[in-house]
Amino acid sequence: MLAALAGGVGAARFLRGLVRVVPPHDVTAIVNVADDEQFSGLHVSPDLDSVTYTLAGVSDDVQGWGLAGETYTVLDSLARFEVPTWFRLGDRDLATHIFRTERLRTGAPLSTVTAEIAEAFGVRARLLPVTDDRLRTMIAVDGPTELHMQEWFVRERAQAPVRGVRFDGADAARPAPGVLEALRTADAIVVCPSNPVISIAPILAVPGVRDALRARRDRVVGISPIVGGAPVKGPADKLMGPLGIDVSCVGVAALYADFCGTFVIDAVDAHHRTAVEAHDVRAVVTDTIMQSPEIAAALAERALRAVA
Amino acid sequence: MLAALAGGVGAARFLRGLVRVVPPHDVTAIVNVADDEQFSGLHVSPDLDSVTYTLAGVSDDVQGWGLAGETYTVLDSLARFEVPTWFRLGDRDLATHIFRTERLRTGAPLSTVTAEIAEAFGVRARLLPVTDDRLRTMIAVDGPTELHMQEWFVRERAQAPVRGVRFDGADAARPAPGVLEALRTADAIVVCPSNPVISIAPILAVPGVRDALRARRDRVVGISPIVGGAPVKGPADKLMGPLGIDVSCVGVAALYADFCGTFVIDAVDAHHRTAVEAHDVRAVVTDTIMQSPEIAAALAERALRAVA
Repeated sequence: MLAALAGGVGAARFLRGLVRVVPPHDVTAIVNVADDEQFSGLHVSPDLDSVTYTLAGVSDDVQGWGLAGETYTVLDSLARFEVPTWFRLGDRDLATHIFRTERLRTGAPLSTVTAEIAEAFGVRARLLPVTDDRLRTMIAVDGPTELHMQEWFVRERAQAPVRGVRFDGADAARPAPGVLEALRTADAIVVCPSNPVISIAPILAVPGVRDALRARRDRVVGISPIVGGAPVKGPADKLMGPLGIDVSCVGVAALYADFCGTFVIDAVDAHHRTAVEAHDVRAVVTDTIMQSPEIAAALAERALRAVA
Repeated sequence: MLAALAGGVGAARFLRGLVRVVPPHDVTAIVNVADDEQFSGLHVSPDLDSVTYTLAGVSDDVQGWGLAGETYTVLDSLARFEVPTWFRLGDRDLATHIFRTERLRTGAPLSTVTAEIAEAFGVRARLLPVTDDRLRTMIAVDGPTELHMQEWFVRERAQAPVRGVRFDGADAARPAPGVLEALRTADAIVVCPSNPVISIAPILAVPGVRDALRARRDRVVGISPIVGGAPVKGPADKLMGPLGIDVSCVGVAALYADFCGTFVIDAVDAHHRTAVEAHDVRAVVTDTIMQSPEIAAALAERALRAVA
């Protein structure tokens, strides 16, 4: 059995490779939900959906999020009512959010609904939201009010300088059913190449998760989301820098060192091996840019072998 | 000032004619909401939307409901989750329901949201739901459970024989703000050619409405929805018969006689004039089949003249 901590697109692509080298039903992905947001009253779970859609083979790999071949009729029609439409939800994608919202409204926990959605898309890996409770990444910028992650990233296009990051609800959040057990019993635990500040950190912020990982440090292998001093995708650099985290694989390795005994860095970062290992983290050097599912599968195999 | 009691398509077409002969902002349409239903958690108001879309000139006049040029991407995608999709909601239409649902969720009364939607579509007539409270038409059929109107009409295609009709919530429903005042102050009140059993009757069932109409009986003019012994559109005959109401303009006139002093019947029903007038209702004979907005306008003009 394998467990993986997952954010959005980078994690989704890694998991698509992972399920090529191990049986999908042996994989439990523990997914960030702190990017979740309500748009026009519909509950959107961007990271869960990225993982679901990618594993189902229906994701829009060019755009990097959402479903392939989308249309935007509903969103364009909503504009008539002067509601915010900066979060571009496609028509097919909206069906997922309508279903999720109605199930949550009737009292189903997010973990149950997530499993139902995964099954509807034919995904055989187990997807778990890290928590069924409310958890939200809030970004402090100059000015009186924090921004929700999507406001900062999508609406403001990650332009506002970051002064701080906070995970609202983390203190009271409980791991979703199955999360801690998956971490306790997994033969290996992968920290996917996801944004360390807003994808992995909120997972770690749920009480019990980081401790469970520390107890398995020898079986935890991370994949650096930073290659050659820049994120492969997304705004990690704009968050790490202001928070005093070195924008390099070394910075991420240091951040994870207490629970992650092995760290995969890209070949272009081979010269950082010593610096990574200075944090008492074993460095594995390989190709990490997942330009194809085959490369992702090779990366997954290399990562698993390192903690076998 | 004019008031009108309105159901769905028939009322919408009449109102489209009415606003050609009087200034739209002088018209208050008091609309049935007992057909409202939740689909996948979205609040759908079929009659309010038929009136709004028709007055806005964006209705699908061929299909008889919904918006012209619709697509069904969301609904087809929802089918994946095995939720009921027998109520064919188009993508553009769904935007209206998403907006309405979210506004209601945040505490706005239906009358406020209805005005917002009408304004967004550029409708200048005032549209009022008869009540902001929950009111639902329940159809008793053979078997242990009642059907909601949409279940009986759309899902079951009006095939199940009707044993009774009940307006759930009517006892506690209060007229929406403006309803009674519109009835008190209108120069004329039109009962649109709508289904008497499930469109007009639930409006009358809201406490206070029927009494307000009775007090204005001389200014109330109805239009028969039954022409030549059959409804122009919809399942009125399947409801009137089993409830012991004669499926004719005479049956409707009798049903309305206590509050409606004048009744417009179609030329093909001219021979019913005496039978209508036997109920102490003045009969007006004219063309009532609204094949064009021009015919609807002439009908509206004739009806208004009868109670001027």
